[in-house]
Amino acid sequence: MEHREKIRIIDVGPRDGFQNVKPLIDTQTKLFIIEGLYQSGIRTMEVTSFVSPKAIPQMADAAEVAKAVIGRYKDLRAIALIPNLKGAQNAWNAGIREAACVISVSEAHNKANINRTVKESLDALEGIREALPDLEVHLDAATAFGCPFAGEVPKEAVLSLIGSAQQLGIRKVTLCDTIGVADPAQVKELLGEVTGRYPGLELTLHFHNTRGMGLANIFAAAEMGIRNFETSVGGLGGCPFAPGADGNTATEDTVHMLEKMGFDTGIDLAKLLGVVEYVDRHIDAPVTGKMLGVTNSACANISGRA
Amino acid sequence: MEHREKIRIIDVGPRDGFQNVKPLIDTQTKLFIIEGLYQSGIRTMEVTSFVSPKAIPQMADAAEVAKAVIGRYKDLRAIALIPNLKGAQNAWNAGIREAACVISVSEAHNKANINRTVKESLDALEGIREALPDLEVHLDAATAFGCPFAGEVPKEAVLSLIGSAQQLGIRKVTLCDTIGVADPAQVKELLGEVTGRYPGLELTLHFHNTRGMGLANIFAAAEMGIRNFETSVGGLGGCPFAPGADGNTATEDTVHMLEKMGFDTGIDLAKLLGVVEYVDRHIDAPVTGKMLGVTNSACANISGRA
Repeated sequence: MEHREKIRIIDVGPRDGFQNVKPLIDTQTKLFIIEGLYQSGIRTMEVTSFVSPKAIPQMADAAEVAKAVIGRYKDLRAIALIPNLKGAQNAWNAGIREAACVISVSEAHNKANINRTVKESLDALEGIREALPDLEVHLDAATAFGCPFAGEVPKEAVLSLIGSAQQLGIRKVTLCDTIGVADPAQVKELLGEVTGRYPGLELTLHFHNTRGMGLANIFAAAEMGIRNFETSVGGLGGCPFAPGADGNTATEDTVHMLEKMGFDTGIDLAKLLGVVEYVDRHIDAPVTGKMLGVTNSACANISGRA
Repeated sequence: MEHREKIRIIDVGPRDGFQNVKPLIDTQTKLFIIEGLYQSGIRTMEVTSFVSPKAIPQMADAAEVAKAVIGRYKDLRAIALIPNLKGAQNAWNAGIREAACVISVSEAHNKANINRTVKESLDALEGIREALPDLEVHLDAATAFGCPFAGEVPKEAVLSLIGSAQQLGIRKVTLCDTIGVADPAQVKELLGEVTGRYPGLELTLHFHNTRGMGLANIFAAAEMGIRNFETSVGGLGGCPFAPGADGNTATEDTVHMLEKMGFDTGIDLAKLLGVVEYVDRHIDAPVTGKMLGVTNSACANISGRA
């Protein structure tokens, strides 16, 4: 068998997905889904968010989830979202050693999202780095491809935010298409600039499927050499403002496409679809990924290349 | 303003879309939707199919639709599907001068679809060419990227079918991903072979969005120089075997992506979305395109690059 190039899928469903579900999901259900994702072969996961439980009640069990996950899965990279120093400290105390901090490239979006200027967010990030130097922090660069308020986001602003993060010792950056406006030509153009300017950076891409371009953008990024993608089981989360609209690009659709293209994601699609089915039945949010519906259809017998 | 490269969108909704709708759509509604598509800027359309009304009652008004369309729109390329010589003659008598003839690359699918071997289909096509030499006939090469019965379809079989069609004087071929299994790497690989072997051919690509890869495949094909795509208003038609599954790639999502990438489709997206809204209200089939939902959402103000 020929050598297949590896791609890492980071499932953000337990954080970004659950966070967007209104009815509270009990902790055991969350852990059951995380177990399913792990059994499917996912080895990097955003497991929870240490936000204020007043702001997002769904994440009130962050410490419990984090402790359980870290206790159970020794070879899982369990990432938590941290909004500020208090969240970072809580995450650290729960055993989290890898965290994601969101800063918007767009001033307007950063202000609306977390009521801070980008400079204030970077200062807060510096405070976290100083207080918890052993916590590995990634930058999630939100609205990297467009902003709901400001419209177009200049490439220079993306490069500048990455530069500021690097000065704080951050080596991993996720470029997020927060509202699903990126097109594949734009993806190639921006990635050309970013990898040219910051060749040592570990880049992850996070695309929403709001306008149906999620997989097109993942393909474009893969062609540019990107090997880390954040996706969400069932397509949970993201920016599903409209009824029937997609949010995140679904993990199962991404795995299917990349494996069919010849990449090795390390994920067992059949097992993953079992988790998607469970999510579809037990979580009060629509599964927008296509692969669950295809599995039981007349098209099912040709879902793989072989 | 810079010169933008043109891409031709062929809307197949009035044929492939309506054909898959069970309740009969009255002719006036069909013509109203065709009018909307024309007003949106679409200048190439599959308007109907001259199949037996016993096989597909929805297409019983084929001659009426064709005559009305040809009478009204002088600058519209109105294409009809023809299954056999009788259909071709009926199409010709209704004024159709451009027709599509479907032959599957896969023997198994051709047999299941039209109960003929590929050789028998080519012989029938030859009969049509001889009887109606002034009818321009395109080949729709079905299952070019995979077959629901045979699985993988060898590239050689695609090349061979195109070669046979060329010997019958056919210059235009549409490669159809009949069941939505194509992945973008495969698209690039096959197109490299086809354009290398048949450089003079006018190629059109037709992708289904069954597994979410419709736009990814259109992007991949556009990168290979393809400038003709068949899509369907609202995503009607295609292979929607499962509830919630997508069929055809939606015209509105395709137009949005290509225009945002800088191509000129000649189509006014806002007007087109008016037609999609009408389809959503009046046609008993789900709109699977994303752009209609996005239009009224919080993400709407950034649907264009400018």
